[in-house]
Parts: sequence; C-alpha cells; structure tokens
Amino acid sequence: MKSFASDNYAGVLPQIMEALAAANTAHARSYGADEVTARATQLFQEIFGAEAQVFFVFNGTGANVLSISSATQSYNAILCADTSHIYCDESSAPETFTGCRFFPLTANDHGKLDVETIKTRLIRKGDVHYAQATLLSITQATEYGTIYTPEEIKAISALCREHGLYLHMDGSRFFNAAASLGCSLADISSAAGVDILSLGGTKAGMMFGEAVVVFNKDLAKHIAFKHKQVMQLASKTRFIAAQFDAMLRTELWKTTAGHANAMAQKLHAGLGAIPGVTITKPTQANAVFAEIPRHWYEPLQEHFPFYVWKESTHEVRLMCAWDTAEKDIEAFLNAVKKLA
Amino acid sequence: MKSFASDNYAGVLPQIMEALAAANTAHARSYGADEVTARATQLFQEIFGAEAQVFFVFNGTGANVLSISSATQSYNAILCADTSHIYCDESSAPETFTGCRFFPLTANDHGKLDVETIKTRLIRKGDVHYAQATLLSITQATEYGTIYTPEEIKAISALCREHGLYLHMDGSRFFNAAASLGCSLADISSAAGVDILSLGGTKAGMMFGEAVVVFNKDLAKHIAFKHKQVMQLASKTRFIAAQFDAMLRTELWKTTAGHANAMAQKLHAGLGAIPGVTITKPTQANAVFAEIPRHWYEPLQEHFPFYVWKESTHEVRLMCAWDTAEKDIEAFLNAVKKLA
Amino acid sequence: MKSFASDNYAGVLPQIMEALAAANTAHARSYGADEVTARATQLFQEIFGAEAQVFFVFNGTGANVLSISSATQSYNAILCADTSHIYCDESSAPETFTGCRFFPLTANDHGKLDVETIKTRLIRKGDVHYAQATLLSITQATEYGTIYTPEEIKAISALCREHGLYLHMDGSRFFNAAASLGCSLADISSAAGVDILSLGGTKAGMMFGEAVVVFNKDLAKHIAFKHKQVMQLASKTRFIAAQFDAMLRTELWKTTAGHANAMAQKLHAGLGAIPGVTITKPTQANAVFAEIPRHWYEPLQEHFPFYVWKESTHEVRLMCAWDTAEKDIEAFLNAVKKLA
Amino acid sequence: MKSFASDNYAGVLPQIMEALAAANTAHARSYGADEVTARATQLFQEIFGAEAQVFFVFNGTGANVLSISSATQSYNAILCADTSHIYCDESSAPETFTGCRFFPLTANDHGKLDVETIKTRLIRKGDVHYAQATLLSITQATEYGTIYTPEEIKAISALCREHGLYLHMDGSRFFNAAASLGCSLADISSAAGVDILSLGGTKAGMMFGEAVVVFNKDLAKHIAFKHKQVMQLASKTRFIAAQFDAMLRTELWKTTAGHANAMAQKLHAGLGAIPGVTITKPTQANAVFAEIPRHWYEPLQEHFPFYVWKESTHEVRLMCAWDTAEKDIEAFLNAVKKLA
Repeated sequence: MKSFASDNYAGVLPQIMEALAAANTAHARSYGADEVTARATQLFQEIFGAEAQVFFVFNGTGANVLSISSATQSYNAILCADTSHIYCDESSAPETFTGCRFFPLTANDHGKLDVETIKTRLIRKGDVHYAQATLLSITQATEYGTIYTPEEIKAISALCREHGLYLHMDGSRFFNAAASLGCSLADISSAAGVDILSLGGTKAGMMFGEAVVVFNKDLAKHIAFKHKQVMQLASKTRFIAAQFDAMLRTELWKTTAGHANAMAQKLHAGLGAIPGVTITKPTQANAVFAEIPRHWYEPLQEHFPFYVWKESTHEVRLMCAWDTAEKDIEAFLNAVKKLA
Repeated sequence: MKSFASDNYAGVLPQIMEALAAANTAHARSYGADEVTARATQLFQEIFGAEAQVFFVFNGTGANVLSISSATQSYNAILCADTSHIYCDESSAPETFTGCRFFPLTANDHGKLDVETIKTRLIRKGDVHYAQATLLSITQATEYGTIYTPEEIKAISALCREHGLYLHMDGSRFFNAAASLGCSLADISSAAGVDILSLGGTKAGMMFGEAVVVFNKDLAKHIAFKHKQVMQLASKTRFIAAQFDAMLRTELWKTTAGHANAMAQKLHAGLGAIPGVTITKPTQANAVFAEIPRHWYEPLQEHFPFYVWKESTHEVRLMCAWDTAEKDIEAFLNAVKKLA
Repeated sequence: MKSFASDNYAGVLPQIMEALAAANTAHARSYGADEVTARATQLFQEIFGAEAQVFFVFNGTGANVLSISSATQSYNAILCADTSHIYCDESSAPETFTGCRFFPLTANDHGKLDVETIKTRLIRKGDVHYAQATLLSITQATEYGTIYTPEEIKAISALCREHGLYLHMDGSRFFNAAASLGCSLADISSAAGVDILSLGGTKAGMMFGEAVVVFNKDLAKHIAFKHKQVMQLASKTRFIAAQFDAMLRTELWKTTAGHANAMAQKLHAGLGAIPGVTITKPTQANAVFAEIPRHWYEPLQEHFPFYVWKESTHEVRLMCAWDTAEKDIEAFLNAVKKLA
Repeated sequence: MKSFASDNYAGVLPQIMEALAAANTAHARSYGADEVTARATQLFQEIFGAEAQVFFVFNGTGANVLSISSATQSYNAILCADTSHIYCDESSAPETFTGCRFFPLTANDHGKLDVETIKTRLIRKGDVHYAQATLLSITQATEYGTIYTPEEIKAISALCREHGLYLHMDGSRFFNAAASLGCSLADISSAAGVDILSLGGTKAGMMFGEAVVVFNKDLAKHIAFKHKQVMQLASKTRFIAAQFDAMLRTELWKTTAGHANAMAQKLHAGLGAIPGVTITKPTQANAVFAEIPRHWYEPLQEHFPFYVWKESTHEVRLMCAWDTAEKDIEAFLNAVKKLA
C-alpha cells in the first residue's frame, strides 16, 4: 500500500535505520546522560544558537504538552488556532496535565492565525476571574499544509512580547516548512522570536521521537523536571538523539522533506488539471487539499487511502511523505482521471 | 564500558534490531491499526488469555500511569510499597495525571508487600474525607531483585478482591521474574489474579516500548481514550509491536532474561565469597545487593559504574543485563578481590 | 451606595438572617449529617422529585465544577456557550480540577444555545484523538438576562439524550428565571430533562451557598466523594441548608426574585424611552443591557456603579437585586435623563 | 446535645452573629473589594506584620490547598506528618488540584514533627525522577491537641530555609494554640519563620470562613489567581472578613479559645482520676485523648458523642469548644464515673 492518508503511515528512512544500528554499541548512560545525546545536543546548538536547550521526547503530543507545561501555571490560558492539532487531535492531554484553559482562535482560510485575530483574545489581563493567556501556539507547517513566512512569525512574536505571551511553535512538519521556504531551521524559529519549538521527527521519517527546543531561558527553569513528569524521558535516550543527529548533521531533512514537498507540488499540478477536482488550499508543504465528488471516495480509497477532511464540501486531504514516489503520484492521478 | 548501573544502560538485542528492520516495509496504518500490531496483539492473547487487551506505550512511567488511570477517579488512593519505582522514581507523574493519592506501605526486608501489611491501609471505606483505595500496585521482580511466587500473588489478589481493590503489577522486569520462576507469563499475571500489568520491554533488551496488558474488563472501559490522553499512543505503533512480537513469539525472553539472571547468580556467588562484602538480599532475578566498604566505590566505579543504594550502610546495587558477559563478571570480581 | 453592578453586591435578605439565627442552636453534627440539612434535603425532594439528591456548596464556581466532575472522565469535553460564566468567569478551575476540555459554542444574540448550534460539535464520537463531549452546560437565566422556556430546555435535553450527553444547568439566577416564567422550579429542571443543576443562592439574597441538585442517578455515583474533594463540603453545613430552607419553604424566592425582575422591567421601560439609549437584549430576568454614549459612563458610575459589557459598542449591563427599590430606579433614570 | 465529637459541632459565637448583622448593610463591592474586607485586612497587617497578605476562603481544605498551590509546581512534593489532617482527612484534594506528591513523615507520640525526622526526607534534591520537596506543612495545634512552641517552630523554619523549603502552618486550631501558649498570634507564625498560614475560623466559633495569611512574598506571586481558581473566592467576601474582624479586633479569640482550652484541662483532670481511664496525650489545647474500656462507648455516646480515634487501643478523642460549659464536663464525668 502507498497511502496518502498521513505522513505517519510511512516507514523509517534508511539513513535513520543505520543511525539506530550505529548507536547500538555496548552500554550507555541512561536518561540522556550518554554521549550520543551530548553530541546531538551540541548539534542543535550549532543550528539553533548556543542558548538553545533540547529535550528529546517520544511523540508530538508529548512535545506539545511539555512545551505548554514549561510556560504555565494552572490558571493560565493557551491561545491557538481552532484548526490546530493541539486543539483538535490531542484529546484533553494538555488540560489534564497542566490544568490550563484553551482559547481557540479562528484560523484564516489557509489555517493560519494573523495578528488581528490574536489581539481579540488579549483581554482582561490581571482579572482573576479570567484564565490568563500566557502562551500562543502556532503550527508550522499548518494543518492545511500552509506556511508562516519568517516575517509573519516575527510579527506574531512582536505582538506576543508586547503582551507578555510566550510563542510556541508546533513543528510536527517543521522540516517541510523550512525546505519549502528554502531557509535555515533557525530562520523560522530562534531567529524569528519563537520561544519554544516542538520539532517533529516521526512524520519526517524517524521511527519515533520529537524534540522540544527551548530558546527562551524563562521556559527552561522547570522543564527538566516536567520532562520526566510528563512521561517523555526515555531511558535509552540515545536512540532518539541518534535519529535527530542523522536528520540534522548532513541536512538529510532538506532532501527528504524537499522530496515530499515536491511530490505534493506534482500532485497539486496534476489534480488541478482534472475536471471535477477543485484545489482548496495553496500547496506549500507536503499536503494537498481538494474537493472531489463524493462517489469517488470509495474506488480511490481502495488503493490509495486518504482522509476526508470536511464531509460537507467533499474536501479531502492528500499527504505526501519522504517515500512517496513519482510513480505513486502518477498511479493516483490515473485513477482519478478514470473517474473524471 | 560494561556497566552494572542499570539494565537500561544495555543496548538493543540483535533479534530486536532485525524485527525493527523487518517491520519497516512500505506504509502501514498509524496509531496501532496496522497488521504488525494486530499480529502481536493476537500473540498476547494466546499467551495471557483470549480476554487480554494490550496497549503499547513508550516507557515504564507511561505504562504505570496508564494502568492507574484506567482504574481510578480522582478521589481514589493507590497502595504501593514505599520502595516501589512508582513511588520513588516517577516524579509525581501519577498524581498530576490522575489526581489520586498514594498511600505507601512498608515493604519487608526483601522489598515485598505481604497481606498483613496491606490490610493496615484497608480502612475508612466509604469515608468521603479519606482518599479511597482502589488499586494496589506490586512490582515483579521487585526493586530489590526479589520475586513474588504465584501463590503469594494469588493471596494478595484474593485480599484485593475481598476489599474491592484492583491489583496492578509493575512488571518492568517481569521477564526476569518468569525466567527465574520457570513459569509461564500467565502464571504470575492473568492466572494469578492480576487485573492489569505493565509489561516491560526496554530493560529486557528492546529499544523502547512497554505494554499495558488488561485482564479485567472493568479496566478496559476508558483505557483506549486514556492511552491517547496520557501521551503514550505511538503513531508508528508497529515499531513497538514488532519488538514485543520478537520477544514473545519464540520466547526470546526466556533466553535473554534467563541469561541476565544467571549472570546475577554468578556475581552473587563470587561476591559473597570475598571478605568485606556482605550480600544483603536474596538474588532471585538480575540484581545483586551488597554492602561494601565505602572507599571501594571510586576505584570500582571507574570501570564498572553502579548505584549506591543506601549510603548509610554502603549498600550498592549491581544489575546484570541481557548482554552482561561471564568475562564482565569475572573482571569485576577480580577488581573487587584486589581491593579486599 | 445602590449599585447596578451585580446582584452579588446586595446584602442578605432579612428572612435569611433570621434563618441563620434560628439554626444557631447548640451542637449539630457536622458535614451535613445534621437535622437542618435533613429537613432541607426533604424539601428539595418535595420540590424537585423524590429522586433528587442535593449537595450544598459554598459558591457558584464550586457548584459548577462539582457538577462537571460528577459526569466526567479526564478525556471528556464540556460543551457550553462562549458567553457562559463557566467559560468566561471561572478561571480554569474546571480544567484544573477535572482535566477536561471545553468546546465553546457560539451563543445566539440573546446569549442562548440552540439545537442546531449544539449539533455542530456532536462529532468524532469514539475517536480517541478528540476530547469526547459528555456534558452540555446551559445557563438559566443566561448571562444576558434571557430565559430558556421549558420547551426549549426539553428540546435540548432530547438532543442530549439522543447523543449520550448529560445536561447541566448553571442556575446562579435560576429563581429569577422561574419567577419570570411563572413556573415551578421543577418545570425548568427535573421535569424538563435537566440531569444536574447548580442552584444559586448567593445572588438571590443568601449570605453564601449554592446547591448542586442531581436528578440523574448516573451522576450520583461518585458525587459525595467529589463534593469533599472539590473543597465544597462545609463543616457547618446547617448554615447553608437553613438558608435554602428559608428560600424554598414559603417560596420566598418568588417574591424576591420576582421583585428584582420587576425592577428590571421598570428600568428597561424607563431607559428605552430616553433618547441616546438603545436597549440591546430582551429583559426577561433581572438584567438590562443597553448601549449608551461613552461619555455618560463616568457621571453615572459615580453614584450608580455598573459594568461595561462590551467596550466596542458601549453596551452596559444593569443588574437589579432583591433590594433594588423603585426609588433607586427612578434616581438612576433621572440621572440618565439629565445626560440625554 | 452537647457533643465532644468535634469543635465544628458547635454553633456560632453571638459576637460573630452580631458582626454578620452589622456587615449586612446596603450594597458592597464583591469579591473582596469592599470596605469591610479592607478594614479586616489592615487589622491582619497590624497583627501579623505590614507585609502580611490575607486571602479569605470558605473552609480548611480550601485554605490548605490554596497554601500549597501558592508554592508549588506539579513536580513538587509536600512533606507533612502522617497524622496530619491534610494527609488523612482532605481526600486527595491537594493532589487533584496541584498535581503534587505527598511524602508523609512519622509524627512523634504527640503528633508533632521534629527536625531529625524531617531531615530523613530531604534527599535527592535536583533528581528529576524524584518529586522535589518544596513545602513542609505542620499543624498548630496538632491533630492530637499538642502545641509547637515558638522555639520549636523556629528550629523547623531554620531547617526549611537551609534546604529551600517553604513552611506552611495548618492552623485550624491556631487560636487555641496561641491562647494556650499565652503568646501573640505573630509569635507562632510570622515572627517564628512561618511562610504561609491557614488560619482557622470555623472551629473557633465562626459560621464559616478561614484565612490564608501569606508572610513570604515569594508565595504571593500567583496566589490571587489561585484563590479564584481553587473555588475559594467568595462573592460576598465581606461576610467572612467581618467574622475575622470580630475575632481579632478585641481579641475575642483569647477568651473563647482560652475557655475551650480550660474546659479541656478540666476534662483531663477529671478523667485522669477515674479508674479504667488512661490519658494518652498531654492536653495543651482543646482536645483530650484517653483510652477507655470498649463497652463504655455506647452508653457514653448516647448522650455525649465523641470519636473513637484508635480502635485497636480504645483511644477516644474528646474535643471542647467555645460553648462547652463546666456543667457539660461535669455531666460527662459523672456518666463516666457511673461506668467505672
């Protein structure tokens, strides 16, 4: 099966498998006190700045909850897009662990938040009756496969600073965003005023593992304790660190995320030319959103699983991954053409 | 370095590495809806009984917190040994996630709980002012490397049933216990009245991953939702399932845990014969506890890291793992003899 | 000062003061095991039905959090109006205590929820990634001083039953609603399909105290334990019970809430006739909402404090209480007329 | 009925009833922004020092949970006596609200903690696997009716400061302690190094209400927000403030707590002289603990309810309150004598 359902249907990059094998030598100190982790940490600091601190975790929800917990007291509120993964797809894990309130903000048509929308919730500061916003979370690339430019991030960050909010970036597809923009990883995080980043590894082709990267020292005060408490401190941390090392040291992500993005462009171009199909979002990362006739679902999904995103408009989401091949795209487009 | 610090310092079994490679084929459905997970689940049911349900998680704290959360309301209390990992080494993760109270019970000299001790906390049932005990957690093998026999577990289980408590087993070294007893995995869990089991994989030679195995249907009601919420649902679950499949299908655990236990026996025998060393616990699994002179710490730890367990009595813990070799034991014993 | 800021600025009804004095005789069993509480409980059952169970609490947030906690597991979601007190004015107390997610629904212009709006969130049932809605909370009278009719409540209740939701009513101004409708207390709660009610006492003229009234036995299973745990179990419960007894036994609430409502009607009529004033909501209980010129705030608030509800449109809220007098209304209207 | 079960069986002091009536005048700002609260707050500062901040709450559990929440992150631990109310009689409210762990310490025979015992848990500082102790809670007077002297408190406070712990005092019977010692309220709190105090009103003869008094500015940072969030912010705060004003302004507590203490002394003396009775604790406040034959329970409790404290040794607790009369003591002693 080659699926367009999610980039987490894909397996593990061969280079990652090699890195895991290479890390499997003799004994190593547990809980991140090993040499593989030390080397990877140093690499993060070369890439994101010497002040960056990195905490390896198991999964994306863990990364997001750890990020939130580093910034909050239980009477705080989190602002995020109403379309965000953290709001729609992580159960109530953030509330249960941190006690905080979410205030969802209406994302624009491209799944992004803009400064004016954020301002509408910057109210009642100091009012003990109202959960006090302390952190804004944005997703890069967004759940709609769109991307915040460095300038947009800087504008949001400036607003956050003005109002005493921390800026969190949920970067489960961060590599796709950077590859698409052709910028460095720092350009859309540490250098753009992000305070804390959930850096995704699993969807990018790792077996498991994400990284929480802290740029603002305020957020580092308690985070080592929360890292353990949030059940995200791996005893054999070296096997997460080694995967990130492989992704970052030779910029493997540029090739692999770039490939997934290119496949999405090819899919976008092909689909857009087929009668009966309406592309609904700009394709900036590795997702294509399109409206198709409802009776196409079944024949297509038999061989090419995908998610129906919005039942009311027959909008579907098609994800490309590091291992999506040109021939997979062509086979899918042929299948669509037969239905058109 | 060959360490006696912890079995989590060891790397990954070659058979596990092969299983991971074998699972890395094409696309697979995420979050446990894949075929590898289905096959592994079936295997668990063959081993533990057709009613058993299995939830794969990332680490031991996650397994324990998920187990607790399946059984509790926030006004409940958990009973456990004051020496237990869940009480001493998992921060306040259980409280933060479940809201429950812990009532620690005094373990006996071998780190085990007995029926009489448990009874002392079975008080004030129905009293709203008192956190209501609903789950007892025991560790198999214990933190002192000792083992509950099937009969002992059955006696504790009978007490639990009589008093409306669920029985949880923290089995981070469950394979070592079963290998030591020469019994089946079911003999000391489902068949002995355990309601829910945290089955450890990482310390047994996996890269990452544990399994929560539910035997009592009461505890299955909410657990799928909690599994996600507790941040322990892996998107690429197949890579945990494949490891457990490799451990269980050919009873790999018998060989590997059996080896670690045998190395501990060898270490026990050798150490016990050296003047100045006092063995403090029976060696029933893969740990040896001994009192040694304080000034031996430094020269020994330089080449053979280990934990000082109890500073006041100079008691140290020496753990053997699947990859501890006879020559490692001999080298260590020689180093000790030189100091004696 | 006679304020229009909030009905909680008012003091305590003389009949309530007498009831408190009458309850202050000798010793009584604590934590609700006393005779005053028993008598009041019986009265609740006469009024709301023999199945009703009542738990006296200290304040409205306590009543709402206790209600939620009786119905939820931590992975659940609560549906409520985005204008509701529980969402806007109780900090993140519900999340911190229960771990649950809030999904706010857009209230209509009158601050009410309708069936169609509620349906939009009845999605993804059984999806572990999505916080599972289990309780809908509506406010009676609403934060805008409007009222759900018994028919409207029944329609919402029917929807809830169809979708497996419990229906909670935040009744901090429940007496005002019943007095306005001229119906019994049961007509808009137990008899209309409400499962659990936060019945407000403080704003109605009590010194302190609210009651959680449970109509659905499902929600009674754990609530006595949660009552204590949520820090709302008074040691001298008799002094809350006695106040409710005084409110209910002779239907004191009909007179007092009816008076507050009548004063609001008078205020509405007078204000509506003054040029420059626009009444914005129907006046169905004891609140009047109106837009007035911004430069009137200061001269008016000097003698008659009130809340500015919506700064952007100069909408203000004017609350009447049990002790608002006709002459207070007249004095205020005269002050407004001078500015007009 | 005149009970020896608990001082919370007693009603409300006449002076308190008068204060409540006096506070019931016209409208007042809600949530503590009123003049009665301002006056009472100033009085607290005169008594406890100009830096003291006071937060009025509803009940003792609320006071204790608010105190803890002011000092903690969720990975923290609280140290307290295994006999303490906070550990034995407040359900798991502290864990649910704060997420923290309790580490119970063995109280001495008099229900007190000493420096050496506390030291045993001051371990593993900075170890992320171990819940990090940040607050020690002691009870004054203790659950056994014994009292910490100013010197003992200072010694414990010095230890706390040395180890980075905050010192909390659960003072539900604080007035009894001060009256017994003949010292000022500050002598055993602010002046003795206590950081935060739960000052009890209800058991002292108020209708409801306790006060959290903060002496250490560190703990004031978030407390106003937590005050609301922990569901302990009364809308009509003036009615708690007025009660404390009445207790403190003319030192009413000296008379009333002093009387309760004196009655306990009388009871102690009388009981101690009766054959078959063994007094088990020193009587320093308003409680008497004694072992009596088991078959005396029923005939005595028929007219004089009391708690059996320790079933195994037939130890009972007899509490005196502000309204315990000499004739009540005499009647009880006569009843005991008849059985002896």
